[in-house]
Amino acid sequence: MNAKRVVVIGAVALGPKVACRLKRLHPESDVVMVDQDEYISYGGCGIPYFISGDVSDVKELMSTSYHMERTPRFFEDAKGVRVRTRTRALSIDRKAKTVRVKDLRSGLEEDLPYDRLVLATGSEPNRLSIPGVDLPEVIGVSNIASAIAVKERIAKGQVNKALIIGAGAIGCEMAEALSDLWGIETTVVEIADQVLPIVLDRGLARMVQKHMEEKGVSIRLRETVKAIRRNGGTSALTVATSQGEIEADLVIASIGVRPKSNLAREAGLVTSPRGAVVVNRRLQTSDPDIYAGGDCIEVLHLVTGKPVFFPQGSLANRQGRVIGTNLAGGFATFNGVVGSFSIKIFDLAVASTGIPLHTALNEGFDAARALVVQADRAHFYPTQDLMYLEVIADRKTRRVLGAQGIARNGDALTGRINAIAAMLPYRPLLEDLANMEVAYSPPFASALDIVNAAANTAENILDGINRPVDPEEFEKCFLDAQADDAVCLDVRGPANAAPFVAYFGERWLNVPQETLKQRMAEVPRDKRLFVLCNSGARSYEALRQLETAGLCEAVNVQGGVAALKKSGLLELDHEEDTTE
Amino acid sequence: MNAKRVVVIGAVALGPKVACRLKRLHPESDVVMVDQDEYISYGGCGIPYFISGDVSDVKELMSTSYHMERTPRFFEDAKGVRVRTRTRALSIDRKAKTVRVKDLRSGLEEDLPYDRLVLATGSEPNRLSIPGVDLPEVIGVSNIASAIAVKERIAKGQVNKALIIGAGAIGCEMAEALSDLWGIETTVVEIADQVLPIVLDRGLARMVQKHMEEKGVSIRLRETVKAIRRNGGTSALTVATSQGEIEADLVIASIGVRPKSNLAREAGLVTSPRGAVVVNRRLQTSDPDIYAGGDCIEVLHLVTGKPVFFPQGSLANRQGRVIGTNLAGGFATFNGVVGSFSIKIFDLAVASTGIPLHTALNEGFDAARALVVQADRAHFYPTQDLMYLEVIADRKTRRVLGAQGIARNGDALTGRINAIAAMLPYRPLLEDLANMEVAYSPPFASALDIVNAAANTAENILDGINRPVDPEEFEKCFLDAQADDAVCLDVRGPANAAPFVAYFGERWLNVPQETLKQRMAEVPRDKRLFVLCNSGARSYEALRQLETAGLCEAVNVQGGVAALKKSGLLELDHEEDTTE
Repeated sequence: MNAKRVVVIGAVALGPKVACRLKRLHPESDVVMVDQDEYISYGGCGIPYFISGDVSDVKELMSTSYHMERTPRFFEDAKGVRVRTRTRALSIDRKAKTVRVKDLRSGLEEDLPYDRLVLATGSEPNRLSIPGVDLPEVIGVSNIASAIAVKERIAKGQVNKALIIGAGAIGCEMAEALSDLWGIETTVVEIADQVLPIVLDRGLARMVQKHMEEKGVSIRLRETVKAIRRNGGTSALTVATSQGEIEADLVIASIGVRPKSNLAREAGLVTSPRGAVVVNRRLQTSDPDIYAGGDCIEVLHLVTGKPVFFPQGSLANRQGRVIGTNLAGGFATFNGVVGSFSIKIFDLAVASTGIPLHTALNEGFDAARALVVQADRAHFYPTQDLMYLEVIADRKTRRVLGAQGIARNGDALTGRINAIAAMLPYRPLLEDLANMEVAYSPPFASALDIVNAAANTAENILDGINRPVDPEEFEKCFLDAQADDAVCLDVRGPANAAPFVAYFGERWLNVPQETLKQRMAEVPRDKRLFVLCNSGARSYEALRQLETAGLCEAVNVQGGVAALKKSGLLELDHEEDTTE
Repeated sequence: MNAKRVVVIGAVALGPKVACRLKRLHPESDVVMVDQDEYISYGGCGIPYFISGDVSDVKELMSTSYHMERTPRFFEDAKGVRVRTRTRALSIDRKAKTVRVKDLRSGLEEDLPYDRLVLATGSEPNRLSIPGVDLPEVIGVSNIASAIAVKERIAKGQVNKALIIGAGAIGCEMAEALSDLWGIETTVVEIADQVLPIVLDRGLARMVQKHMEEKGVSIRLRETVKAIRRNGGTSALTVATSQGEIEADLVIASIGVRPKSNLAREAGLVTSPRGAVVVNRRLQTSDPDIYAGGDCIEVLHLVTGKPVFFPQGSLANRQGRVIGTNLAGGFATFNGVVGSFSIKIFDLAVASTGIPLHTALNEGFDAARALVVQADRAHFYPTQDLMYLEVIADRKTRRVLGAQGIARNGDALTGRINAIAAMLPYRPLLEDLANMEVAYSPPFASALDIVNAAANTAENILDGINRPVDPEEFEKCFLDAQADDAVCLDVRGPANAAPFVAYFGERWLNVPQETLKQRMAEVPRDKRLFVLCNSGARSYEALRQLETAGLCEAVNVQGGVAALKKSGLLELDHEEDTTE
């Protein structure tokens, strides 16, 4: 039952975890890890922080928490695992149960026999197929060697302008890394119409984009790169795009990754249309003696019920333990993912779990979202700060499908997102989220915490008693349209509303919510009413009052002035502080 | 079906939520709230922060997030809810469906008719039955009026020494409030043998106690207060305890609260032996026309399956919405609690959910715990800090029963605790927690996050491959015992171990884990072996190696040197930095 000889191909994240877990459970196993690279067992997700300077020495990404470098020698001495670096796996002979490997130093080839084989081959960056992509100034930052190369060029002062292709996670992290500490003039070109297009909905993405722009990063959406050429000007490169030309000394291509599964495919193992290795819940491939995990496999998405390619270093670690347990004769499963994500971009944290609204709609859910803006702890507690949290739910079943948010305090935000993520495998309904038990004390939560408030708001929307309109639709139908048939009913205090009344004139009506019942006659009955407060809470209250008065068509601007401003909409000159 | 006339007794937390939710759903309802106090709708949990000065104006505790004071006028204008303050409910006539109330200003009594009645009577502090308890310098801080009184006395410089009776949440918060900003010499007397005895296990409680002592608070455990008398000395009071006498200018009694249920009991409604109002999941009392919620009811504990009295402002808010929905003809339930708790004590956050080990054992679970000490984010990320997290699980079923922890970064800690809490209603197993999907990026999580690591460690303990010993047992059997048959095997680096080797001599053997296999012969085979590293991770690795070498009885000191030091054990003079 127990594996005697185990070969692990790949020694970055999953491989070492498999090997060490197996050796702890089953010390008599003979475990060898091979990797074509010199560097092994590193935290690839830390690369942007190495480039930014937050992590000063690249060795920190390759060290244990007690500052021991995870070298081949370390694995041998501390873990009893043999490691062969600069050794490439060429092919698998499943009948003979051998792996053909080549020592890249000596050029010698040999066959490594195995009882069980583990594929930890990871992913590789997608490559642009455009002229100039092979120039030395055009690089990815997917591995340690290229990260060191980038940082060296920067430190030598060779980079004044950088272009990042792709506004996904790596692209956004790199934009911060280059511009924040190094002061490099940084432009991000993205083919989609928003940043972070896979994980975020448009509304929050716009807030993230605004923050990046405030930090000096140029964001160019709906734009594709056509060619890169060396030039003789002040910058090393000229990048031709669908919209024009951009000068740069450095181009970082971060347009996603794809599973590295050549070995598996050539060995006849089942792979997905996208090229990921297909495994069962025990993480066995179609050959039960061959396991696979980490960035080279596809996993089940527990919200959609469909397979998904979701490469994350954290999954690799947990999958590695599952494989190690199974190799040792135990029984462990990896059941799937809910798709949690987090990122720090300058002073903003962004986090999400489950699926965004656009994915939910594509998947056929009758999905709706609720956006809530609320303090991240008791509103009277000194360190409180606004959090923007969106919940996505299915109208018919009231099932929670996902959540996403932004906040300055990333721990406060990820804490909420992780709590929602923890429920998602159990297919929670909105009422479950409404009653999620957040540990309450004023320094850490609100008495009615934002996660509960978001669920309540979503329930009200699904029940039809809160009729929301997104900031984007408000922009289109009110701000841009300049139509006379639309009026914004601002139910905040007069001091906050005054500059808007001055600017918009009759189209902006200020009636504080607590006076609305008395002043109902002032509200026009022949206009489209956009009701607005600072966060969306008082305007909901007003909506109820309007309905009682027979004004049943008014809509509530989700997230209120806070969301509009965070999105870069509604910025007036000479405006008073509206942090009410 | 829908209630026309609704009377709400109590206007602090639950009452206002019920009233406002009902009016939003069903504006034609006639809702009146009565409260015997002048102050209504305040955040009672914020009182310690008002006293400490973190919240400067008591009005902030009575205001909305947009700085409107929640006065009776506010409820009338903004919410359509009538409020009668200084109005005491005297009795309920369930047959006539009336509440007898007395206006405390005029002394006039009248009967308020109701279709539905809501009991939001809250809790009241337990009172000591000892001589002197009625002296004006002996107070509780359960309501705004007494909080204002305390702060006034302090601000006048009348308080140099304070005695707090009870080291529960309020007692600990008040200890910080009095000593941190005001510099008051503060002593806490607690009858139990630890601080926070209901929510924390002894190990973490000891760390909290040490932190409070480092901040200058005197903690006296296993001590009871016998009498309080006024004296003629420098301090106003002399407090006689089971252990001696303590001088103080101010005594704060914080020995817990009990449900205020006189009205309910006298009206013949079912109450628990402890005096809490008994309700169903819709929060109806034994009279279906009378609802109750908040601090006066008992709720189902979803981990033990038993009723529990668990007063928390956050529950009151969520229960208020449930009652409001039901009163409006909807259907909503409150299914129970998992017992989440959080508190800030000086620079330390403490949080817990589910049940602690001692409760689990009392409830008949075959419970075990795992204590893990790990960075709260990627260990290479600059702002990382150690978190101490304990998971409690049942050996037979492997069900997760609870979790608790301490950390400097309270948002990072409560984020983990809330995520575990979110799973608890679904009766998760350790393997579910091991695979909990924490949104990973280096600024906010570890690739193998501490919640996953804690579950893994618990699994290893239940599987018998990690044999833990608590810091307290290590203290008893090694540090205090001074027995020659016990040896501590320190598997850290020599620099860290040296001061301990120097102090303990032959009883402290240093063999770094990565050299253990080679140096196995040095490990004595006739001694009781306590294996130790900084956190418990490398010592677990060493445990596996020792077992392979036939040393199967060695035990692993949980939490390692980090936990021992945090508990105030193992403090040597002239010791080098051991932050490895």
